[in-house]
This record gives sequence, structure tokens and C-alpha cells, in this order.
Amino acid sequence: MTNSAPTKIDLQIFKDIAMEIIQESRSIIKKAIKDGFSHRLKEDQSFVTDVDLEVEKSIRSGIQTAFPGHRILGEELPQLETESSYEWIIDPIDGTHSFRHLVPLFGTLLALQYNGSSVLGIIDLPGLNRCYSGAAGLGAYCNRQLLKLSDLTNEDSIEKEIIAIGERQQFVKAGKTDVFDTLMKNHPSVRTYCDCFGHAMALEGAAGAMVDYNLCRWDFAATEILIAEAGGKFIVSQNKNSGNGEMRFDLIFGKPSVVDWIVSTLDIKSSD
Amino acid sequence: MTNSAPTKIDLQIFKDIAMEIIQESRSIIKKAIKDGFSHRLKEDQSFVTDVDLEVEKSIRSGIQTAFPGHRILGEELPQLETESSYEWIIDPIDGTHSFRHLVPLFGTLLALQYNGSSVLGIIDLPGLNRCYSGAAGLGAYCNRQLLKLSDLTNEDSIEKEIIAIGERQQFVKAGKTDVFDTLMKNHPSVRTYCDCFGHAMALEGAAGAMVDYNLCRWDFAATEILIAEAGGKFIVSQNKNSGNGEMRFDLIFGKPSVVDWIVSTLDIKSSD
Repeated sequence: MTNSAPTKIDLQIFKDIAMEIIQESRSIIKKAIKDGFSHRLKEDQSFVTDVDLEVEKSIRSGIQTAFPGHRILGEELPQLETESSYEWIIDPIDGTHSFRHLVPLFGTLLALQYNGSSVLGIIDLPGLNRCYSGAAGLGAYCNRQLLKLSDLTNEDSIEKEIIAIGERQQFVKAGKTDVFDTLMKNHPSVRTYCDCFGHAMALEGAAGAMVDYNLCRWDFAATEILIAEAGGKFIVSQNKNSGNGEMRFDLIFGKPSVVDWIVSTLDIKSSD
Repeated sequence: MTNSAPTKIDLQIFKDIAMEIIQESRSIIKKAIKDGFSHRLKEDQSFVTDVDLEVEKSIRSGIQTAFPGHRILGEELPQLETESSYEWIIDPIDGTHSFRHLVPLFGTLLALQYNGSSVLGIIDLPGLNRCYSGAAGLGAYCNRQLLKLSDLTNEDSIEKEIIAIGERQQFVKAGKTDVFDTLMKNHPSVRTYCDCFGHAMALEGAAGAMVDYNLCRWDFAATEILIAEAGGKFIVSQNKNSGNGEMRFDLIFGKPSVVDWIVSTLDIKSSD
């Protein structure tokens, strides 16, 4: 079954239901933090916890009840393939390493794509009680506050912005350590605010931009539509992971002039 | 006027009063975030906001009412020198750069020293609703929860810890960029969780340790006693700032085995 393109009214309904599903995932996470949980290493040497699995099951169940027939892609469980033009994309816990150590900067990511383009996105940070949500044409919000990225004016200095970046290890895996090292050396305030916390700070304009490499689809499907709705610039390029040959994605996004500064800094330095 | 050493009962009373003073500073900060505030550059090119000044004045007023005669050292206003053996040390907003951009990882620091040694410390993070407090012999707490750092066992891997670090710029100023770059290259999860947020994460054991260089006294007077009370290891060394010749302090603190690993990694790499 294919489907027609979603109207704004469709998207508002989808978003309301998705927000209810995310409320449930937040409850599961908060209970797990209180009660404790176990973790183990996955094949790729990243962590997974019981909570990742429980949250993904809960979100899938909510989606399958509300939207039978839609496709589902999640980080922890097998892809649900159908003929639908709609695909829900889930990262139950983005920043599992932070979550495992109880650094409160992890989150749950949920996005809806129509024919491969993100039309709805939610980034929920239970540790900060902040939920970022938005849909095509409906704007982006942090809790109930509308997000509008104001670009830098001529009086503003790029140097006084904060630039968020992923862990250096991700740039090592992507074969792009020069990107991490160049930015660290050429800007006074580059901070490894990794995973969805960095995305959230870029969405608010608290960070001027974020540079996040070696990502899977579920790591940025929500961010793509949220940044667009907030008026930011979003650049993505694909690369093949040197380890397992899977496709990964390299992102730069945020206030347009900060994104442009990063691109030109990386261009200049790589041709030195 | 000199004073006798504080008993545990004295310290409990001091702490109760200090916590009331900090409640007031948190209210000022929360109101400022809601209402907006202005900022300007200081001579050293770091930011100061109206809120830094208002919070320091409020804390000083509280201290002078409760403890007339005690010495006071604060980041933003002139030192109050007396003959007392007691000195209160204030950083009204630690992480002003974060605060200015509304990254919710800034905080207020308050410490009491007796003859130059920290005997009481408070780190308040209004953006996370977390207040870390402790005093000599009374333990360290996050809100009402006792903090006890458990060191790594033989089965735990240093590699799986998170290491918090200050901004690279601080290591540049301290003439120690090799420390920042060496750690970034030799551990998979070094994150610039700068200022009091990194200190807080090390206190909870969420970060295995923190490496924070080029600090002033008010940046770590609270942390020193809190880490000791939580059972962590705290190493401080002095160096003369290359810019203005002032004394600055370089810190490594956290779980003992992680601190030891950092020290040995830096020793080995610097003698390569």
C-alpha cells in the first residue's frame, strides 16, 4: 500500500500521537534510572541496555497500533518492511554511553519519513525534561516554545559562538580525524556535546552549529526536519564506513553563517 | 580576629546557611533566564553578565549578614580582607559562556576555607536542578543523595569510562595543549564537559575523571572538598599563566584508578 503525501492536518495528528508514544518511552526511561538497569556490549563494541530494547518495543507497539502498515526502522530490532510510503525511524536511546553512566544528556529520537524525506521529528531528553518536536510546515518547538534560529549579524563574532561536535572516536571511525582536530585548533569553543544533546543545543541556537560524523539514519532523521523548521542550515554527506562497509552520514547543521564558516574552514585547512 | 577550627556541628550550621544563600542565587538566575539579561566582554576577553554581578552581591550580602568578619573572595568584586581564618570563595556563575548562550550546564560555586583549606563546598546547577553540597566529615551529596565514588574493579575497563575535560583554549592558555591533544588521541571518550558540569559528572562518577587546567581558586575550591568527601582522588598543581603572570591551577580528579591512568598516560606520552 502506498499513500498520498501528508497534509498539515495529517501531520498534526501524526505528531500528537507520536508525542503520546514518546511520553510512554520517557516514563520507561525515568523508571529504569530509578530502579537500575543492566548493559552489555554489542558486536560493534557500543553499549546496549535492557532499556534500549524496552523503549524500542514500546514505541514500535504504539506505532503499529496507530499506523498499521507503516514501515519501521529502529536501531535495535529488525526492520519492518511494507509497501507504505511512510517509514517511522526510531533510536530508543541516542547516547547509550551517556545513559549507561547516567550523564543526563541522552535522549529518544523518533522521526517519520515520507518517500525517504523527514516530515516529522521528535528529540526527547528525559534528563533535561526537554522535548523538541516539529513537522513540515508546523514549526519546531522545545516543549511549548517555538524555535527560531536567528543567524549572526555583522556585529556578532563566530569566535564567540559555541560549536558542538561528536566524540573524536567517531571521526576516527569515519577516517576524518583532520575535521575534528582542525576545528578544535581553529575555534576557541568547540565542545564535544555528543549525540542528541548537541543536536538540541544547535536547535535552540545555544550552540552556533554542530558537526557530527559517522551517523546512522536513526541518529539524524528527526534533526533534519527540526533544523529546517527552525530556520537553520543542514548539510549531509554520505560515506562508507571503513570498518564494516555500511553507509554512514556526516552532518554540519545550525545557524547558516556558522555552518558556512565551518565548511570554509575545513575547505581551506584541507587544501593547506 | 582569628578563629578556632570548625567542629562538625559548626560545619553543619555553616552549610545550612550557605544552602539558603544558594537558594536565593538560584532564584535570581532562573528569573534572569526568564526575563533576559545583557552581557559584555571583560578585559581578559571572557564574558560577564549583569547576573554574575547580581548573584555575587546577593551571596556576599548573605555571608556578611550571617558571618560578619569572615574574609570573602569572589570572581567579580574586590576581595574582602579581614583577620579571620575563615574565607568564603564565590564564583557567581561558573561557565558564563554557557550561561550567555543558555546552554544549561553552568552553575554557582561557593566554598568555605579554614586557613586556606576547603572545609565546605557547594556546586549548584540551576539548569539541571542539581545541587552538590558537602563539608569536611559530613559527606558529599547531590540534592539529598549521598555521593560515594566506587573505583573501577579489575573487570572494568578504563576505555569504557567517560573522561571530562575543559575547553582546549584553556590548555592553550596554560601552555599545555599536549595534555588536551594526548588525552583526546589516547582515550575513546574524552568529552569537553567544561566548567562545573564536568566537576558534577566526576562527583557522581558519571565521568570517570575530569582534567581541568588554567583555573582560578574560585573555580575549584568547592570541588576539592566535595571530591574528598565522595572518596575521589584530587591532584592539583600550580602554574604561572603565560599571559598575565597570575597563578593558575591544573587539576585532575575523580575515581582514583582513572586519575592514575591519566597521570601515567600523560607521563609516558610527554617523555616519548
